[in-house]
This record gives sequence, C-alpha cells and structure tokens, in this order.
Amino acid sequence: MRIALLGFGSVGKGVAEVVQEKGLGITVTGIADSRSGTIDPAGIDLQAAMDRKDRTGLCGDISLSPLDVVDGAEYDALVEVTPTRIIDGEPALTHIVHALSRGKHVVTSNKGPIALAHRRLRALAESHGVQLRYEATVCGAIPVLHVLQHDLLGNEVRALHGVMNGTCNFILTRMEDEGLTYDQALAEAREMGYAEADPTYDVKGIDAALKLVILANTIWDLGVTLADVDTTGIDLITPEAIQLACDRETTIRLIAEAIPGKGLLRVSPRIIPRDHPLLVEGTLNAVTLHSDLAGELTFIGKGAGSVETASAVIGDLLYLGEHHAGAH
Amino acid sequence: MRIALLGFGSVGKGVAEVVQEKGLGITVTGIADSRSGTIDPAGIDLQAAMDRKDRTGLCGDISLSPLDVVDGAEYDALVEVTPTRIIDGEPALTHIVHALSRGKHVVTSNKGPIALAHRRLRALAESHGVQLRYEATVCGAIPVLHVLQHDLLGNEVRALHGVMNGTCNFILTRMEDEGLTYDQALAEAREMGYAEADPTYDVKGIDAALKLVILANTIWDLGVTLADVDTTGIDLITPEAIQLACDRETTIRLIAEAIPGKGLLRVSPRIIPRDHPLLVEGTLNAVTLHSDLAGELTFIGKGAGSVETASAVIGDLLYLGEHHAGAH
Repeated sequence: MRIALLGFGSVGKGVAEVVQEKGLGITVTGIADSRSGTIDPAGIDLQAAMDRKDRTGLCGDISLSPLDVVDGAEYDALVEVTPTRIIDGEPALTHIVHALSRGKHVVTSNKGPIALAHRRLRALAESHGVQLRYEATVCGAIPVLHVLQHDLLGNEVRALHGVMNGTCNFILTRMEDEGLTYDQALAEAREMGYAEADPTYDVKGIDAALKLVILANTIWDLGVTLADVDTTGIDLITPEAIQLACDRETTIRLIAEAIPGKGLLRVSPRIIPRDHPLLVEGTLNAVTLHSDLAGELTFIGKGAGSVETASAVIGDLLYLGEHHAGAH
Repeated sequence: MRIALLGFGSVGKGVAEVVQEKGLGITVTGIADSRSGTIDPAGIDLQAAMDRKDRTGLCGDISLSPLDVVDGAEYDALVEVTPTRIIDGEPALTHIVHALSRGKHVVTSNKGPIALAHRRLRALAESHGVQLRYEATVCGAIPVLHVLQHDLLGNEVRALHGVMNGTCNFILTRMEDEGLTYDQALAEAREMGYAEADPTYDVKGIDAALKLVILANTIWDLGVTLADVDTTGIDLITPEAIQLACDRETTIRLIAEAIPGKGLLRVSPRIIPRDHPLLVEGTLNAVTLHSDLAGELTFIGKGAGSVETASAVIGDLLYLGEHHAGAH
C-alpha cells in the first residue's frame, strides 16, 4: 500500500518511524509539512526525511505545497495528520476533500474536519468508492471506532460515557492525590508536556466535546456539531470540591456522555463513585458503551502520544489493506 | 445467512431469541439438542421450537440426531453451542469437524474443542476455505478476539493479563466486601446461579486456564493445551489472606497471565493494588493487552450470560456475513 503523509510533526513522524521499523507493506510516496513537500513514486527514504526535518525544520522542498503532494503524488491512501483547527477544519478539510475526490482512501487523526463535516465527507467517500477512517481522532490507542463499527455487529449501542481528555484527567488526579489547586496542577501538567501553553482547548472541555461529536455522528448519524454539546470545563473546580467528593468515597472526573434517546450530549465534571469503571488515573482515557446485547463494555488505554496515535493510524491503514485493497 | 444451531440450552435459546427479535438477515434451517433435531430449509419457526423445548424438553424429533442436523441441513454456518466437555471436546469437536469438512463456516462458544484442537481445526477450515470463529469462548460479551484479530493490526501483543472467570471474581468480591469465608461466598454464588453444583471447573481455575489457552494459541500460535498452564484455584483462599491484602490497600483476584517471551502461562490468585485496571467487582471479566504500539489496553465487561454470549455469537455470524459471504 502506498501512502502520502500530510503533516510531519509528532504523529506524522510516529507513523514514519513505525513504517520504517516494521515495514508492514507500506510505502510512503509523498510527505508534506506546512511549508514543504517531497514526492517519490518509488518510495521516500524515511530516515533521510526525518533527519532533514530535524535539521532544517522542513521535510522536503519549499517549491512543493501540501496540496501539490495531495494532488500530485501517487498513493492509495492519504494519511492526514496535520494540526487540527477547529474553527474551519482547514487546511486538513481541503486535503481530505481533494484526496477523496481523486478516489483515494483517507486515514486521519484530525478531529476538526471529522467533527465539522462528517456527513459531507462520508458521502464524498461513498460516491468515489473509497473509505474515510479516523480511529486516531478518538481516545488515542483505544480502538473504540473499530469496536463500534466491526466488533459489536447485531448490537444496538444506546449510550456512551467516557473520560476522553488526558490533560483534564491528569489535572483532576493531581488535585485529588496531592491536594493541589487547579492552577498548581495545570502548571505541573504543562511541565510534564501534558498541557499546551494555551490550555483552553483541553480544560474547557472542547477536545472531549469534539470526540463526543465524532462518536455520536459515527454511531447514530446524529449530524451534530460542537455547538450541540452542552460543555463545561474543569477550570472552576476547587480543591474544596475535590475534598468534599473524597470525603464521600467519590471523586470528580470530566465525563463526556451521549444518550440520544434522552437528547443528551454533554461534557461536564461529574461526581463518580471510587469503584466506577471510568475512574482512571493520570492521562488515561476510558469509554463505556451501553449496548442492548453485550451490556456495558468499558475500554481503557492511552488517549494520546505519538506512537499511540500512530498505532491507530496504522491500524486503519492495514484494515484498508485487508478489506479495501483495490484503490483507484 | 442460513445457520444450523447445535445446542438449544441457555446460549442456543439466547441466539434464537436475538434472531427472532432482530432478524439480522439470519435464517435458522436446523436446530438440535442432545436428544432431538429439526430441519427446515425454508426456515424454522423459532418461537414454536422454543415453546416445544420448554414444554417437552426437546426441540425437535428424536429420529434426528445432532449429527444428522450437522450433516443433513443446508446452512452457511454451524453455530456450535452445546455444553463443553473438556476431557475430549466431544460431541462438539465431531460436530465442528463435520461442518468444516462440508465447507461450512463454524461459530462456537464451546471452549473444549478450541482449547484442545485449535491448530487442527484451523487447518481444516483453511483447507476448505471457510472460517472458524469463537469470540464467545473467551470473556463473554467482551469482543477481545475481534480486537486482537482486527483492531490492533500492526501491533505486536507481548503479554496479556485478565480476570476471566466471573464465579471466582464474585466469590473473592464477596469475601472481601462482607468478610465471608470461601464456603459462605461459594454458597451465595450457588444461590445466585453464578456457580454450578460442582464448582470445580470454575474455582480450581480450569475455566480461566482454558480461556488463556485459547487466547495464547490465537495470538501467538503457541500450540499449548490446558496441561501447559500453571493453574492454582481460589478454593484455599482464607478470610485472613483477604484481610491482610485489604490492610495493605490491595486485594486478591484470580489472574490469568500469558507472557510468551518469559515462557509464562499461569492462572493463580494474585495480590493487586486497589487502583489496578483489572480490579473489577462481582461477575465482571477484564482483560489487559500489552502491545508495542498501543501500550496497555484494558477491556471490561460481562463474562457470561445467555444474551451476552449470544451477542458474541451473533457478532461472529454478522462478521462472516460481511466479509465471507460466499459459503459453499
């Protein structure tokens, strides 16, 4: 399988490293970052590209734009792992539309375009007879979309609950374990590399809400967007609230929940008992699916990280290779 | 898809109920219990068969044996859900061999034949171009085999740990929560229907060891059997041992573990910390997979039950329908 790799930061290099180490029958014929690109139908030397990126900040030639690679390289699947921009999903949205329109499969870790334009992109993929896969957009290494789409056939999923943001979970865990204030725990999360300089996207619940939108649209085709999620972050949680929860053998976690039968789509800090399956520590993610036959199923794993996200991307690519080998 | 249903007890009736309620494109053309059988190429009236079974203890005519149904009915997949006999895997093993030899897919919840003869049955299935699927043999409603076979492509699974027997987990949970002795907790498990009159198979760790054998052979093709598992049950656990664990903020669970790199295949009571992901309560099951890219992934769900096991059987059948539609 030939792939073009759009985005050559943490996730893109993670994918390149896995392909270089394992082979997996994958050949990379195009790579682009925001300012440069490279195309080689015979297969790009991944080590050389990574070295060049580390040395110069560019993966290729400035004469080639990302869209030149999307439109000009020969590949079976576009791997879109550029940074997400939630306001309009660009430039990833354009990359994905161009690739699907060329009859190429798309595998992406990019939440923006999937949360904004799932129906449109799915229709475009269907009309060109190709697949759009986005396991890496939701809960990192946990294969929750695979499970929903392939492993619970015959089941009707009626609700889902999850801890879907590792940054928030780390902050709440530290506030509880060490009695820190929110600001102290956030500072620690920044030091550890778990929080961005501007943490708004995580701590206000937006990241978790995007994942909830993607899951809800995938499972139930609700056609919802970020604006439809009732979202409250964790930035107003006090040490006193945490202590009060502890005194009652409970704790506080940022829970994303979708119950379409009740019209409920919400991200908010919730008090949960200490033996609740969603009570995970640190940066872990957890998702519980409530289905009519299988009952409650809970999945716990790493929600972020270069290799973990690459794992989800690679899983989607190899799935395509097994089931939809004949690309156009 | 046409199926023949071998075994019409709790799981078999669970499958029939789900098919009757949901349809799912499944037609049942043969049913057998240990003493009777019925065949109808046009599709059996499932409600009538269930009513007859409840009324008479027989699903069909005593002139038809189970093997008559396996050999004589027209179907795409045999659903083998007769009671397991671990000593020789019969009569399920013969049913499965006959169906595969006829070029029919097989879906089973029957641990015996899969634990005893995985390689032989897999080779037989391959030589006839059909599939052998057995999600329901391991951890009930948790789709752990689907995840291993389809959702972690590109990953190398290096170890697994699990709580794979709900009866043992219920007994240990009750000993801990209520300070019961082993005998008291076992009596309660019997009352609740969680333990058999003869609980040996569960409390000695044999059931968990069989699941471990099936997982190990599926993931790593180790070709091991029950005799290769170092197995210790929970029947010698004292209230004092449980109390001692509690005093140290830990608890005791029956853990099945496989680490092929260390030659380790073991089922034994283990002390685990209270925030360990495998610490589940009551009859729940949990499995942790350790893989090179995705890291640690834990799956928690119901390990037994008529509908939950039927869920796994149905999932396998619909997977076959999607991916291997052309049966012989």
